[in-house]
Amino acid sequence: MSSNFDPVVANFYRASQHAALDGLREFLRIPSISALPERAQDTRRAAEFVRAELDRIGLDRSRLIEGAGQPLVAAEWLGAPGKPTLLVYGHYDVQPPDPIDEWHSPPFEPTIRGDDLFARGAADDKGQLWLIFKAIEGFLKTGDRLPINIRLLVEGEEETSGGVIANYVSTNAAKLDCDAVLICDTAMFAPNLPTLCVGLRGIVYTEIVMRGARSDLHSGTFGGAAPNPLVGLAHVIAGLKSPDGRVLIPGFYDDVVPPRTRELEAWRSLPFDSAAYLQNDVGSSELVGEPGFSLRERLWARPTLDVHGIRGGFVGDGAKTVIPARASAKVSMRIVPEMDPVTTFERFEEAVADLTPPGLQSEVVAVALSAASVVDTNNRFIQEAAAALTEVFGQPTVFTREGGSIPVVSLFQRQLGVPIVLMGFGLPDDNLHAPNEKFHLPNFYRGTKAVGRFLARLGT
Amino acid sequence: MSSNFDPVVANFYRASQHAALDGLREFLRIPSISALPERAQDTRRAAEFVRAELDRIGLDRSRLIEGAGQPLVAAEWLGAPGKPTLLVYGHYDVQPPDPIDEWHSPPFEPTIRGDDLFARGAADDKGQLWLIFKAIEGFLKTGDRLPINIRLLVEGEEETSGGVIANYVSTNAAKLDCDAVLICDTAMFAPNLPTLCVGLRGIVYTEIVMRGARSDLHSGTFGGAAPNPLVGLAHVIAGLKSPDGRVLIPGFYDDVVPPRTRELEAWRSLPFDSAAYLQNDVGSSELVGEPGFSLRERLWARPTLDVHGIRGGFVGDGAKTVIPARASAKVSMRIVPEMDPVTTFERFEEAVADLTPPGLQSEVVAVALSAASVVDTNNRFIQEAAAALTEVFGQPTVFTREGGSIPVVSLFQRQLGVPIVLMGFGLPDDNLHAPNEKFHLPNFYRGTKAVGRFLARLGT
Repeated sequence: MSSNFDPVVANFYRASQHAALDGLREFLRIPSISALPERAQDTRRAAEFVRAELDRIGLDRSRLIEGAGQPLVAAEWLGAPGKPTLLVYGHYDVQPPDPIDEWHSPPFEPTIRGDDLFARGAADDKGQLWLIFKAIEGFLKTGDRLPINIRLLVEGEEETSGGVIANYVSTNAAKLDCDAVLICDTAMFAPNLPTLCVGLRGIVYTEIVMRGARSDLHSGTFGGAAPNPLVGLAHVIAGLKSPDGRVLIPGFYDDVVPPRTRELEAWRSLPFDSAAYLQNDVGSSELVGEPGFSLRERLWARPTLDVHGIRGGFVGDGAKTVIPARASAKVSMRIVPEMDPVTTFERFEEAVADLTPPGLQSEVVAVALSAASVVDTNNRFIQEAAAALTEVFGQPTVFTREGGSIPVVSLFQRQLGVPIVLMGFGLPDDNLHAPNEKFHLPNFYRGTKAVGRFLARLGT
Repeated sequence: MSSNFDPVVANFYRASQHAALDGLREFLRIPSISALPERAQDTRRAAEFVRAELDRIGLDRSRLIEGAGQPLVAAEWLGAPGKPTLLVYGHYDVQPPDPIDEWHSPPFEPTIRGDDLFARGAADDKGQLWLIFKAIEGFLKTGDRLPINIRLLVEGEEETSGGVIANYVSTNAAKLDCDAVLICDTAMFAPNLPTLCVGLRGIVYTEIVMRGARSDLHSGTFGGAAPNPLVGLAHVIAGLKSPDGRVLIPGFYDDVVPPRTRELEAWRSLPFDSAAYLQNDVGSSELVGEPGFSLRERLWARPTLDVHGIRGGFVGDGAKTVIPARASAKVSMRIVPEMDPVTTFERFEEAVADLTPPGLQSEVVAVALSAASVVDTNNRFIQEAAAALTEVFGQPTVFTREGGSIPVVSLFQRQLGVPIVLMGFGLPDDNLHAPNEKFHLPNFYRGTKAVGRFLARLGT
């Protein structure tokens, strides 16, 4: 298990911990909230801050790539011919800090309490991006070279549209020639448990629009004659998913490929307290979902359908007796590998049409389609990443999936066709997108080491 | 058919048409919009205007009765011992005029175009209230007495809460001793077709609250584990009402008493163009409703269930993948006579509980309960009203029902236990609660005569 990792680099990491933390704190002080127009200047300032840092640590051609929004920051080091090329991705923008009253220290004044650094963006993603920079810096400052070739691409709209990077990658795939992508923007399954995320669900996000009468009508005068789009939506939704959680769309599960037995066994051995999950994470009376599958499968390896909002009619206080002319529902499906987003959307569309009651016209809008992704764990990059993590954390690395979607992962997979290494150092209680976001400082340092060892292993 | 109606009174009506119209126009100029706090003074001004008019035409004890809102206006004339006493009800407040841009003339500048008088409140209810005043004035100005005893009670919150009159009638029923109630606040079934409304549906208005997880969750991370209150509401609603319009609540139809064959036959003979109704009034692809019943029955004599709005989750533009912790639906039932509102609510509550999927907690709030009402047409007051209308319009009076609810009718029926005469002179195209509200002036004059003849007939 022990590696021949360069002791000089390891020593540099140890010796420069204070400086590394100071740099990260400076980065975190910039309120680069991409969702807020009044923070556009601050967000750009974060881009420039990253560019300067990439230059300072010794990467080549650090630059801003302009697009129709916040710029990408790019840099590279291509001085290792014959060695693999790794594309590093991260983002310099952060979520808005609301509700601001619930923060125990100001979101843009990084504050250490115990072993944690509290600030908006601490884990998502400034802290995890910074540790990659520090890992790279260790090689360049001690030996003037990297073990492999590296390209960096850092975006500033991950928390909003992701439009600039989507556009850039789609039209410049050739310039991004690489053998794998490294992203540090996920979490470990449990504290001290080194984790590689090797699967993400995709999403098919839709809006069902239901139309009945020409204009809003009074339910006293017209109740018993006029079709009610809200009742129609209820019938459609109830027909799409059974009360016990099975999706009823014909063909919906046809293309689902079950995880391998080994993967399922590994999931079963993950440390997990289902009572605590029910009580603390969900807080409902019981967990629900598709019958016949374990919770882990339901979250990671089975497709689902959820309704996010229903618009139309009257939702103020009191009693208004309107039969709305129009109502709509936001409905999304999480899809798993092998399920084609377009086929899934078409099956959905057909089911909605079939379920629409008489007198109503329905229409389905495709809001966003994104495929799932699974990385083969037999891949060299995943193997080296796992080994590097195991070395640093002293525990076997676990392979997990996540139930959510990371659009940029689909983007890279589709455009570049290379393995994506999701090496996350966050913790489940890091409060992403919530007040009191934090990053566990031991993970900051261990993350730096793990990325360093990953690069070294790829270079051997 | 010809009656011995006093030719002096008839002559007074003819001679004072201009003055009557002038008075009504003055009444209509007061923007007595009870829903708008900034119109509170104007609304009170309308009350004072009515009080002064009741005094001017010769009624006794004209007065304002104060309550926790806009005052009631009351007056009486009790100089006909041995004769019946009629309680006259109306309201001096009006709906807001929005959307104001769609008015062809300003809503509070009464404007005559053709045979119609356009203004907010023209038909609902100032014009119809004013014609009762004019009918009374005819007797008092020509003979110094009325054929029967009369009490008047005019409210200023009909378009909002109706709280003041509900409170007053509930606690002062003894002071309102009468043999029948006259209300002119409904419409004729068709132009020139004298109409008495003898039935109204009641309403049970509820809100279903559905709770799942403790806080809003992300559908990627939790889809497949967390219960979704919006999906739960869809199952509940779909289980309450079939796609073809049948209400599925156990026992819901148990107490429904079908209309008598004679009433059904009368409805069938009403002039009605169902193609025009579908096209112009509803504007959907087809009419819907409980199978096995005619449209007229579905609207007037069958209970229904409608959903008015669903709150919870995300309804903005774009895609947010929230599983809301809580969602709620506004659901109402129109109920027909013999259906008890409380029993109906309890059956509803039980059905909702039974239909709530696992993992969710539902709760049902009773927002408003109001019984239906049907007046027996063999009643003397209805018979005399029908005869008076027939005399004036030269056509047999038809007995109709309405699908909506008039809370004050339930109130009078419950508290006073006397027949309610709903003698309406509006027309189906009077644009109540909409821009360009109007009153058909020939109906204003014929209405005055019809009420006069009704009073005279009751006095013989």
